[in-house]
Amino acid sequence: MSPEEVSAVFKAVDQDRERLLEDLKELISFPTVSARNQSIAETLESLKAMLEREGFRVSVLDTPTGRPALFAVKEGEGRPILFYNHYDVQPPEPLEEWETEPFSLVERDGRLYGRGVADNKGEIAARLAAVRVAEKIFGRLPLTVKWFIEGEEEVGSPSIGELVAKHKDKIVDCFGCLWEGGDVVNGVPNFYLGVKGMLYVELVVKTAEADAHSMYAPVLDNAAEKLVRLVAGLKDARGRVTIPGFYKDVKKPTKLERKMLGSAKVDVKKLAEGLGVRKLAVGKGQVVERLVYEPTCNIAGIYSGYTGHGSKTITPCRAGVKIDFRLVPNQDPDKILKSLKKYLPGVEIIVHSKSYPARIAHTSPVVKAALAAAEKVYGVKPAVFPNMFGTGPMAFFTRAGIPSAMVTAISHPGSRLHAPNENIYLDDLLKSVAHHVLLLREAAVQA
Amino acid sequence: MSPEEVSAVFKAVDQDRERLLEDLKELISFPTVSARNQSIAETLESLKAMLEREGFRVSVLDTPTGRPALFAVKEGEGRPILFYNHYDVQPPEPLEEWETEPFSLVERDGRLYGRGVADNKGEIAARLAAVRVAEKIFGRLPLTVKWFIEGEEEVGSPSIGELVAKHKDKIVDCFGCLWEGGDVVNGVPNFYLGVKGMLYVELVVKTAEADAHSMYAPVLDNAAEKLVRLVAGLKDARGRVTIPGFYKDVKKPTKLERKMLGSAKVDVKKLAEGLGVRKLAVGKGQVVERLVYEPTCNIAGIYSGYTGHGSKTITPCRAGVKIDFRLVPNQDPDKILKSLKKYLPGVEIIVHSKSYPARIAHTSPVVKAALAAAEKVYGVKPAVFPNMFGTGPMAFFTRAGIPSAMVTAISHPGSRLHAPNENIYLDDLLKSVAHHVLLLREAAVQA
Repeated sequence: MSPEEVSAVFKAVDQDRERLLEDLKELISFPTVSARNQSIAETLESLKAMLEREGFRVSVLDTPTGRPALFAVKEGEGRPILFYNHYDVQPPEPLEEWETEPFSLVERDGRLYGRGVADNKGEIAARLAAVRVAEKIFGRLPLTVKWFIEGEEEVGSPSIGELVAKHKDKIVDCFGCLWEGGDVVNGVPNFYLGVKGMLYVELVVKTAEADAHSMYAPVLDNAAEKLVRLVAGLKDARGRVTIPGFYKDVKKPTKLERKMLGSAKVDVKKLAEGLGVRKLAVGKGQVVERLVYEPTCNIAGIYSGYTGHGSKTITPCRAGVKIDFRLVPNQDPDKILKSLKKYLPGVEIIVHSKSYPARIAHTSPVVKAALAAAEKVYGVKPAVFPNMFGTGPMAFFTRAGIPSAMVTAISHPGSRLHAPNENIYLDDLLKSVAHHVLLLREAAVQA
Repeated sequence: MSPEEVSAVFKAVDQDRERLLEDLKELISFPTVSARNQSIAETLESLKAMLEREGFRVSVLDTPTGRPALFAVKEGEGRPILFYNHYDVQPPEPLEEWETEPFSLVERDGRLYGRGVADNKGEIAARLAAVRVAEKIFGRLPLTVKWFIEGEEEVGSPSIGELVAKHKDKIVDCFGCLWEGGDVVNGVPNFYLGVKGMLYVELVVKTAEADAHSMYAPVLDNAAEKLVRLVAGLKDARGRVTIPGFYKDVKKPTKLERKMLGSAKVDVKKLAEGLGVRKLAVGKGQVVERLVYEPTCNIAGIYSGYTGHGSKTITPCRAGVKIDFRLVPNQDPDKILKSLKKYLPGVEIIVHSKSYPARIAHTSPVVKAALAAAEKVYGVKPAVFPNMFGTGPMAFFTRAGIPSAMVTAISHPGSRLHAPNENIYLDDLLKSVAHHVLLLREAAVQA
């Protein structure tokens, strides 16, 4: 597209701004807290109406959890592209830390505030606007757009595997999927070509029917001590996970990925500050590589015995630890769970969640289209990470044959996702609409 | 004493029974829960009146905590003996598990029920009765009796060190101290010639200002992991404590103690059952030796990160562990704390309590008198443990030069100390009175 055409897109986006903000205002007004099955029906109804207004055919996909997904299709010229989003949000608590009402869209100093504005109702509104603007500019959508919007991402997407399996024929013709968004860091969009996987377990050790007076400690097993030894043994002196085969399937970075990683920067000082530490645990040069490629065995919680004020002299009979393993391509949570069970015989293992890692090639058409469009909209080359540092249900799509990636951008490092005063820049929102419009056009060429 | 004289004592004790039970009933009626500074004044007043009624001169020893101690003296023939007791009790909760009112003395099937009946208002009433009966039988007490009754044993005796230091001249002439009682196991009185000491600490590790999203785990220290490694390192593969010098001062058993230990039996099967385990952690032959002589490093509680239901993916910034070290003679809690601090530089160490171990010689006059009297009253040789498995503030007295021991018996293994339905056998109570009477007489000979 010529610079003139790009300007025309920006102008059209700007003219559409009122409609965009009205949609977003309506979406934010629903306290769609999936953890409490709250406002599901009204959010669905509103969203369905918006999609139909833009010319989508919408179906409601029921789930056993009572939080249905929406599937929407709007015909265009080329091979279909898929959008993934979720309409649910995190709980707003702690309420007293919000400077404005969490479920009310507020514009202040160039930013938009409200629960879900970044994660990710803002992106739903942006994509609706992009479809509207694209149709206005191009006459007809350059591509057919299919859209999968689930309602339980914030509680671990318990139904998504089943939904994708059941409705695979509806999406399998998509050449790629725009996952929910990446972020804009100092004017540079940061894209992520995958996610880490997850195995979240709770290990429980029991040594007796009840806690005992600790004067009997010399003749009793102590559940906390047993657990502590077991957990300490999960890593060696170098910090490597000792579960047999843990690293076996880890995919080595490709040459192209190594090159990408060079362009993908993290502001180490700011990151350390944001995390409340004086120094990160690894050298500056290692930070990005670790965040992207390192699978982890992270203690998320540990408990046993008396943990209140002061002292109580007991020998605890029960101890537990919650551990999240973040997995990288091609680690398999099921294989690792199996290995863990074999490694820790006699230990009760509760599985809280399992999720596959995902990573697609830099050369996927959906990535190429997004990068080309982004350079025009943002005026800089995006930073591309082989995968993000966190986890999401992306693998259900990549494993169904649809290359998926976080190659659009809506939030920024200060967006406060999942926290009070969640926000995005209005400018980032508008740029994201323009990026989507150009992306659809580029994709029609690439796909 | 001849068998006839012993019979006369039993008869006199039996005749005194009504008075004994009236006193006990009154003492039990006060909910003297020191943890809540409850009923302190009324219990003190009642107890003071009872002591004065028996001819004691009573002084109230104030404490900074608002729970005064009583010091009482009743003149007799020989060198004074000291009694130690406490008038406070544990909280009665959980109330719903009591079969009768906790603060009401109830006699049922040969047992007396009520909070404090075993620990240790029952013994206070028994000792009052013993003084009364002894005076009646012998005309005048064979010994001067001094009595120290504190009001905060159940909250760790915070003022006792100061009290003993301040009033040392009042008690330093005592040739021995009868500590609060031992127990009767299958008709055999179990005596204990000391207590274990205690160092109760909380170790706290901090790695950041706040918990982080666990996607940053690859570049962050995890407080729980750091703590787990540190705690696992406190013992070696054989379970020995690794703190430098921990075992250095441990006093080896004397030949006489080894002999005593042979007579001191624990019903291993019953103990395991009572502790809710199929098997104890050490072989049958080792149980008593371990309970008596083994100093411990016991994890009483551990906490970090998310410990609620389900899962939360965080890297915790703070982790803590509560550890009670039970110390044996001659370990010194201050020395071990110093060594621990040096061993764990940079770790925050909160000290919750410190208490010295104590152990006196089998040959102390107070022990010999108690044993001789017990054989006559119980018709068997008592089992004598070099020290009990638990902890108490006994060392304040032994270190002041007054050999102290648990050489009287009031409770039994089913007494449910600190628990609902606390109870003693009426028969054990009466035998304890008789034992005290004979003990005073024997002591007058020994001392």
